[in-house]
Parts: sequence; C-alpha cells; structure tokens
Amino acid sequence: MGSALPHRLRRCLINGEARSDIDVRDRGLAYGDGLFETIAVRSGRPCCWLDHLDRLARGAARLRLPLPSPARLKTEANQLVEGVEVGVLKVMMTRGPSARGYRLPSDPQPTRILFVDAPAADRSDAVAAEARQDPRTEQGVEVRLCETRLGINPQLAGLKHLNRLEQVLARSEWSEPSIDEGLMLDAEGALVCGTMSNLFLVTEAGLETPLIDRCGVAGTARGRLLRIAAEAGYQVQERRLTLDHLIRAQGALLTNALFGVWPIRSFDGREFDLSLLPWPLIDRVREQLMQPESHW
Amino acid sequence: MGSALPHRLRRCLINGEARSDIDVRDRGLAYGDGLFETIAVRSGRPCCWLDHLDRLARGAARLRLPLPSPARLKTEANQLVEGVEVGVLKVMMTRGPSARGYRLPSDPQPTRILFVDAPAADRSDAVAAEARQDPRTEQGVEVRLCETRLGINPQLAGLKHLNRLEQVLARSEWSEPSIDEGLMLDAEGALVCGTMSNLFLVTEAGLETPLIDRCGVAGTARGRLLRIAAEAGYQVQERRLTLDHLIRAQGALLTNALFGVWPIRSFDGREFDLSLLPWPLIDRVREQLMQPESHW
Repeated sequence: MGSALPHRLRRCLINGEARSDIDVRDRGLAYGDGLFETIAVRSGRPCCWLDHLDRLARGAARLRLPLPSPARLKTEANQLVEGVEVGVLKVMMTRGPSARGYRLPSDPQPTRILFVDAPAADRSDAVAAEARQDPRTEQGVEVRLCETRLGINPQLAGLKHLNRLEQVLARSEWSEPSIDEGLMLDAEGALVCGTMSNLFLVTEAGLETPLIDRCGVAGTARGRLLRIAAEAGYQVQERRLTLDHLIRAQGALLTNALFGVWPIRSFDGREFDLSLLPWPLIDRVREQLMQPESHW
Repeated sequence: MGSALPHRLRRCLINGEARSDIDVRDRGLAYGDGLFETIAVRSGRPCCWLDHLDRLARGAARLRLPLPSPARLKTEANQLVEGVEVGVLKVMMTRGPSARGYRLPSDPQPTRILFVDAPAADRSDAVAAEARQDPRTEQGVEVRLCETRLGINPQLAGLKHLNRLEQVLARSEWSEPSIDEGLMLDAEGALVCGTMSNLFLVTEAGLETPLIDRCGVAGTARGRLLRIAAEAGYQVQERRLTLDHLIRAQGALLTNALFGVWPIRSFDGREFDLSLLPWPLIDRVREQLMQPESHW
C-alpha cells in the first residue's frame, strides 16, 4: 500500500459491519457495476445529504440496483461522521458479488460501503482547501483542455457510476501543480465538464451549462447552483456548448460538492476578468454547499 | 452473498497471498481502473496463456499500469490451476489502493488478483458447455440486438478493462434462456460485437469482422481466428460493419475464449444456413482455443 495511505480505514462500514474490504467477486470491482457519492462533512454532519441521496436513488433506478432505506444509510453515515470536523464521506453501492458473467444475478446481494476519509494534504483535496480558505476560491484556477474524450452513452449519462476510466485517463494528462482541472469534450466535440467538476459559463444574458444527456455527471453542486440561480432570477440555460462558447464567455465556473465553486481564471491562454462574475450568487452557492445538513 | 455463490473462494491469490478480498480504496473498485482476463483451464493448464498475457501487456501499456513479470504471473497461475480439469482462471490487475481522486498515484502499488472458478452450471457458462459437448457448438445460437450502445472512445477501445457497465446493461435487456447473446452497436450505429463475444461475418469473399478501433474488446479468440484464417488462405477483412452487412451475410460466428466459436443460427428473424459456414476453419480454431498451453 502507498506510503501516503493509512494501512487501514478506521471509519468504514460494509453492509453495516466494521470492515474495509470486499470480495473480489463483487461486481463493483469486476464491472464497475455500482454507484458512488462523495460528500463533504463539516461539524460532524454531511453537507447536502438529501441531494446526494436523491442522485443515488435516481442512479439506482436506472441501473436497477436495489438500495437500502434512507433511514439505514443515515444511521450508518451518522456512526461514521460523528465528531468529524472536516472530512469526506464516501458512499458506494454495488450490485454485490455474483457468479462470473454480465448477467444480473437473480437474487442480488448489494454491497453498501460507507467510509470517512480525512481531507488530503495535497492541492487536489477540496474540502481541505475550502476549510483553509484556499486562495483559489477568490483568485480562480487555471484549467486546461484534455485530449481524452467522453464516450456518448445516454443510458449512463448523469449517473455517478463506478466506470471512471475516462476521467482517470484525462486526469493523467497533466502533472503541473499549477493546473487544477481539465475540461473534457465528448466524442462529438461538445464541451461537457471537468474531470471532477461541472462547468458553468457566465454570459451577458445569464448562465449556461452543458447538457448532461449524453455523458457527464449530474453534479449535486451543479443542481444546487441551478436551483439557487433560478430562485435568484438569473437566466440559466442547459444547452449543447462548445469550446467556442467558453472562449467567448465573460467568465466560467467549476462546481463540485467538495470544493464548492471555483472561478476559472485562465484556460489555454484565455484570461477571464473575475470581476465580471456573479459573486453574490457564488457566495450563496458556496454557503449552501458547505452547510452541514440541518435535518440531521 | 447469493445462495449460488460459494461463501469463500478457495483458489485465490492477491499479490501472491492466499486471500480473496481487497481494500475498498482500491482503484479497481473506485474507478474500474484496471484490466482483466478470463482464461479457460483444461487438464490443469490454462489455454492460450500467451495470448491473454499479450493483451494484458498491451492494455497495461495503454493505461500506464505497472505489470508483474510474466514469470510471476505464471507461477501464481500454476499454483491455482494445478489439478483443475475444467475451469476458468480470472486474472485482474488494478492500479491498487490510492487516496481519493482520479489522479494517478505517484507510487502505485498495483493489485494482482488471480482466482479459479468452477464452470457455472447454467447455460451462460461456456467452458462447461464446451466440455459437455454443448449442442450450440453445432446447432448454433439465437441472438438478439441490444438497445444499449457502446460509447466511442478510441483510447479505451480494444482493452479488456474493468469499465463494463455497458455490457451489464446490454445483458440485462433479455432473460429468455433461448437467447444466448446480444449484439451491440456503437453510438454511431456501427455493428461492433456481442456483449461477451466478438463477431465474424461469413461472406462469399471470405470473413469480415468489425474494427475495434473505437470501442469493443480485442478478444483473444478473435485474434486466434484472424491468424488461423489468414494462415489457411481465407480472405479476412477488419472493417466498419452495419446490421445490413450481417443480414446479407451467408453466416455469422461469435468468438469467446471460453466458449470458443458459436455459429449464429438466428438473429431477429433472419435464419442462417449453417451448412454455408467454413466448418474446417471453425474446428481448427476451437481446437486451438481449448488446447491446454503447451509451453507450461
């Protein structure tokens, strides 16, 4: 195991048991046959718990994956996050172990994995960054274009499933610590998202964000921003976008449940004037994303 | 665990240790960041071992995944297959556990998983079928068209990686035991493969098989058939094919390292005359695929 990784996860429950390993026959490993959520934890409570639960339920319906009751997930999450000031709760649901073969097991025994991780020390960890008042939240981030593209698959689009090799390949394209995120196009050249974030363009008319009907993840932070912006009277459009739209936009934002909202400062040589961004909206989204769940 | 699944794998090695579970932080589970091989075992030896090793090496190079030496893999495989008359050896290589995030770990500790499975009792298991002189080898199989399509991603095309949700969804489209396989199109409508097999069309001019440059797996059985056919003087073409080509073909074959070669008897109402198939070629491919590795 890598030197940076603690030998054993202390806060981990698998199907309610204090364990941290799974059977090699689990379909989550064999096929990526499952879903996950990565949830910010603050002051002993998860942030936006219901948003994550909603997305998990929608994904499970699409994949026909049996889910435990929300009450059970909450009880287990609670056991893990208690006393955690700043951290990350990861929830994974797989279709569980089965005999070899793609065919769905007739009697699935899903695997439910919940664990809490400390925020990582390096720049990639967003909760830590947020908690430390990372300068990126105000000064923005530098972003590049990835060569790796997203395959088009409407059936999987939007889901936070366990098939993430495209993101792994895209993220492997750069190692400069000055670059915080890479943007991804789909196989037809439409601009979709970052490797770990959703994208919003700021235009004179309002906000625009790529459709995620063919690929990409329906980020919980994306959903929050869409709702808050609509409530605040912003014009927000989900539409097919290209790199050209980004280059011509006044500004651009990245969203993610852990880091919240990052303004894009520069993209492949294009510098954005951050004073043109809707800061009151950004602040409001950030505040909601980092608010520990009140109904806990 | 499902009632059909034995509680514990007896023949399993993880990084050389007799264990059968992995850390939930393994990137194989988190992202499908890894590769696998499913290898027929006969008379205590794997079949086409070098073909599988070759594909594993090509995939590892593409994903920048460190591989153990062939000697180490062989030693461990040997420990597991000894005394197994008919079975399946599954080899999985993942990038191992890492901190959260898509970024490649700077000091990867890959996970090497090898296990032997008994042939399953149901009709989906091909080794068992072959060993029992399954009637499908002569009488052919019934095949349907899947609605689930394959996303186009040239970087991942050909690899037997762990992102297999498309195959899982495609296989979930039917449950009739009379249907043995489903064919898949890519996002642009080209005919690519079966959910667990490669496809060959038999025409007056020779053989044709879909290109796997945009999606699909470079099956070891596909590779064998291509080589054997070329040696035997058949015209074999890898090209972009559509459903129309299949409908107008004289016949069609499915290949897979476990079941070998299945003729397609019927596809969505189109019945094929199996007497038009190149049976000597089929027999030769089958024989090679089911031959225990001689250099063992």
